Amino acid sequence: MEYQKIIERINKEVAPLLSHGRVASYIPALGRVSPRKFGMAVITTQGDIFTVGDARENFSIQSISKVFTLAMAMDLLGDELWKRVGREASGNPFNSLVQLEYENGLPRNPFINAGALVITDCIIRNGHCALDDLLDFVRNCSGNSTINYDNEVAFSEKETGHRNAALANFLKSYGNIHHQVDEVLDVYFHQCALSMNCMDLARSFLFLANGGKDPESGRTICDSRQAKRINALMQTCGLYDECGEFAYRVGLPGKSGVGGGIVAIMPGELTLAVWSPGLNHAGNSLAGMMALELFTTYTARSIF
Amino acid sequence: MEYQKIIERINKEVAPLLSHGRVASYIPALGRVSPRKFGMAVITTQGDIFTVGDARENFSIQSISKVFTLAMAMDLLGDELWKRVGREASGNPFNSLVQLEYENGLPRNPFINAGALVITDCIIRNGHCALDDLLDFVRNCSGNSTINYDNEVAFSEKETGHRNAALANFLKSYGNIHHQVDEVLDVYFHQCALSMNCMDLARSFLFLANGGKDPESGRTICDSRQAKRINALMQTCGLYDECGEFAYRVGLPGKSGVGGGIVAIMPGELTLAVWSPGLNHAGNSLAGMMALELFTTYTARSIF
Amino acid sequence: MEYQKIIERINKEVAPLLSHGRVASYIPALGRVSPRKFGMAVITTQGDIFTVGDARENFSIQSISKVFTLAMAMDLLGDELWKRVGREASGNPFNSLVQLEYENGLPRNPFINAGALVITDCIIRNGHCALDDLLDFVRNCSGNSTINYDNEVAFSEKETGHRNAALANFLKSYGNIHHQVDEVLDVYFHQCALSMNCMDLARSFLFLANGGKDPESGRTICDSRQAKRINALMQTCGLYDECGEFAYRVGLPGKSGVGGGIVAIMPGELTLAVWSPGLNHAGNSLAGMMALELFTTYTARSIF
Amino acid sequence: MEYQKIIERINKEVAPLLSHGRVASYIPALGRVSPRKFGMAVITTQGDIFTVGDARENFSIQSISKVFTLAMAMDLLGDELWKRVGREASGNPFNSLVQLEYENGLPRNPFINAGALVITDCIIRNGHCALDDLLDFVRNCSGNSTINYDNEVAFSEKETGHRNAALANFLKSYGNIHHQVDEVLDVYFHQCALSMNCMDLARSFLFLANGGKDPESGRTICDSRQAKRINALMQTCGLYDECGEFAYRVGLPGKSGVGGGIVAIMPGELTLAVWSPGLNHAGNSLAGMMALELFTTYTARSIF
Repeated sequence: MEYQKIIERINKEVAPLLSHGRVASYIPALGRVSPRKFGMAVITTQGDIFTVGDARENFSIQSISKVFTLAMAMDLLGDELWKRVGREASGNPFNSLVQLEYENGLPRNPFINAGALVITDCIIRNGHCALDDLLDFVRNCSGNSTINYDNEVAFSEKETGHRNAALANFLKSYGNIHHQVDEVLDVYFHQCALSMNCMDLARSFLFLANGGKDPESGRTICDSRQAKRINALMQTCGLYDECGEFAYRVGLPGKSGVGGGIVAIMPGELTLAVWSPGLNHAGNSLAGMMALELFTTYTARSIF
Repeated sequence: MEYQKIIERINKEVAPLLSHGRVASYIPALGRVSPRKFGMAVITTQGDIFTVGDARENFSIQSISKVFTLAMAMDLLGDELWKRVGREASGNPFNSLVQLEYENGLPRNPFINAGALVITDCIIRNGHCALDDLLDFVRNCSGNSTINYDNEVAFSEKETGHRNAALANFLKSYGNIHHQVDEVLDVYFHQCALSMNCMDLARSFLFLANGGKDPESGRTICDSRQAKRINALMQTCGLYDECGEFAYRVGLPGKSGVGGGIVAIMPGELTLAVWSPGLNHAGNSLAGMMALELFTTYTARSIF
Repeated sequence: MEYQKIIERINKEVAPLLSHGRVASYIPALGRVSPRKFGMAVITTQGDIFTVGDARENFSIQSISKVFTLAMAMDLLGDELWKRVGREASGNPFNSLVQLEYENGLPRNPFINAGALVITDCIIRNGHCALDDLLDFVRNCSGNSTINYDNEVAFSEKETGHRNAALANFLKSYGNIHHQVDEVLDVYFHQCALSMNCMDLARSFLFLANGGKDPESGRTICDSRQAKRINALMQTCGLYDECGEFAYRVGLPGKSGVGGGIVAIMPGELTLAVWSPGLNHAGNSLAGMMALELFTTYTARSIF
Repeated sequence: MEYQKIIERINKEVAPLLSHGRVASYIPALGRVSPRKFGMAVITTQGDIFTVGDARENFSIQSISKVFTLAMAMDLLGDELWKRVGREASGNPFNSLVQLEYENGLPRNPFINAGALVITDCIIRNGHCALDDLLDFVRNCSGNSTINYDNEVAFSEKETGHRNAALANFLKSYGNIHHQVDEVLDVYFHQCALSMNCMDLARSFLFLANGGKDPESGRTICDSRQAKRINALMQTCGLYDECGEFAYRVGLPGKSGVGGGIVAIMPGELTLAVWSPGLNHAGNSLAGMMALELFTTYTARSIF
């Protein structure tokens, strides 16, 4: 396929959308980003790379980081992990707290904030610095040793993160946070503040399109069963309250963040990362959603 | 692949599970079925057929019928349909009514009962008998002109269907049921009472594995875009509150019914139908779930 | 006290409010009523009667009827009644259905619609016409043998009562409606269509201000313990989602209806009935609420 | 009335219940209290005092403190207060968080924990020590200058108060906590840890039975309108999820705490305070509820 032509065509076609989304502005560092940014990267399991637009400009990956911590936690805890977090879509955002209460502190899945906080708690190990562990993991997956946290973003997240503090305390009250609430929140706010670009993200998710093994380095990140399961979880709950919409329009497992990034996987073939900071009503990149839909339309490919 | 060997192995391996599920007993006709029944059918888009056990014994397809009515409604209404029903997973069963209230009578998706009632309302046309229309559709898809409603089941559903009557009246109060409540319920209780076997089901879903076209008759049931979308909807919301579990363990789009049937799709390749009436806590066939998980494990295939 | 002067002053003071409320219009017969109507009646346990404005004009008492059926059901079932309905405020209207589901079909109290439907089910007796029984009870309490149902209203209620039909079916699915759903709804829609005026209402509630005995006829309607309890239930849940507001501003037990009527009790002393069809956001008479607040302010009386 | 005889009779009659309740044990200091404790104090607006049992033994007043802070906040903010907190019963405990979310951070009333945290935030003033202000207020109302916080209890509350920390952070995320979350929680945990006895409590609530003026000192604590309103709020939401039950059985405004205390008001006449640490399923004193019910039965008095 001529992926380069396709993404260039997409780049043109989404241009009119760039002014329509709303850039996340709950912290200054995010609000400063221009809504006109758009980048896209495609990397195949054969090693071919295609990029367009701002694919090499760093942004805050936010919730996309939940896939990294999930992979780490699945490796550390195995099936024990599922005693502390579920695997089902959460219904609508409104439900997050009531469901947590109804289900006695067991979050519905690892990608809603409550579940991600439990996952973060899981990767904290005695005698280890969780922030270093996570950075090692992300640098390994992406092959880019310069990736780092944006400390300004991490600090701002903490300053305004009362809702996440509420969730963490609530989970603690059910015994589903084992470490100190403040420590878990500190790691969580940093993971959301990881600064990466489309190239990095497409590359770091490539093991999920390749049965758990990074095709470039040959390194096994997880076994093929785990890779499939992470993809299944992304399919089920990776796009906030638009998982069904994303499945219907795009038809690939994926994960989004309020920084405007979305990563998607075509198992066995390739990964895509797209970035455009203008968000739709559900908190997903407006142009990013459209770009991915156009990609699967033009390539006539999806998992369905 | 040696599908016949695989399903025979599965047939043996799930045997110990047959006594563990609970057969649906809210109506006598369902409660009479032996929990020891197990059947499985695999049909490829090439026309190869593999069956094991009770694959040719009829059972009540129940909620699996919602895929047929959805396909009919998508054809009749096009994108207008999505003004009356959403496409997102519903969270847990507890939420069905509150979500309906919270979202002003717009059901979360076409497969929860509220959504299916709206879909049923959509296939009722002036001057047409909806029950005949549905039967024609199912007979065409399956190539089996003897398929019919089990009137005893339909009657019993009505006698005990107070909760569905509640939902239909509730939807009517929001203006999201256009016909008389009693008429919609009558069609709905009959569609649930369609009597089919694994062979019929695998065959009648084959168009969804083949871009919308029935490979045997050559007939186009829907276009390829619609087929993908129906698969995406099954993936997102086809297994009650176990969609995530099913994605995680099986990794295929599918649809289940409380009669103990489950149909799954491997796009481009085949359909599977499995039947075992013993249900798990979530109302899905206990042995059926396991059989499908073993199938994707032994064939090392899934959409992920 | 000079009650006549006080209610005449109130009559003048609420006049500017009469154009601000919204008359219930979900059925034509209610929507036709002029929003400028205002009537008020005070009857003391000594037999003194004070009226002002449209106190002798009939209107649809709607939910006020729930007090009559509750008194009947408490007499028929005694404490058994409380196995089928609770005694707590319901929180906000949004919760009605979710609470019913959460609490397995046990309505929170006898005055929310779900609870009132259960109460109506309770007053239906074999070999009796519930509509006649209710009419006898109301005529006895009020001493007015001409009181009757407004059949046009009752019919219209049925035509548009899908939400109540939903509730009744839902309760039936939990086994908390014992008679046929249609029969219960028929009685319910009629009780709401009782046509009475302020004089009738103040008079028919007088037993609740007088320890269960009608001071005029000397007839015992219920024992003093029951009278206190009915007052307590009105205090707790008589004004939809404004019970707290009503307690705070008025400080008396009371019951309202969407026809614009409100009855209140000053135990040991008097009853008040007020009518003005313009409703506030919570479905209570706008001018009626103000009139009662002014009454307790000017008389410096309340139960607190 | 012979109140002394009545409370002595009650003291005997509730004895069998003392072993049935469950003492709150979420913190050690509460769990250590003997379930066999029972005390009761009645103080009339004439100055007569009647006590029985452990009426002079201190205990942790817990949520009863919410009445003190409410009275202070009403004085400080006037009607502005009701922009930050509602006046309606909250439905069941399950709803607390969902309602907060549904109603955008506006707690239903000042006595649920969320509302009480807002009230606590309201009494914190620049240049003042809120803990001193509160202590002054309570010592004034009770005429007992030795009343103090139990610091062990306050410390333990903080150690285990993750749920309250969750609520406070959640409220902060809606902007309905103005001070630092930690500061508000510190005051809140201390107010719950006020150590008082039945005598103190009956005495400190006497202004609410006397139109806002303490009959003994002659001091005006609030105006008579405010006193009535505080009583109305207690009636509506003072007994957790048993407000209706309490109104039905006891028929007086009251406020309970998980330390086993309950205070009730008979307006114009007297206050009652009862203490017994064994709690019922709703978190109210089991013997205390019964004692108050017997009191209104034997005296044939209630507000209804």
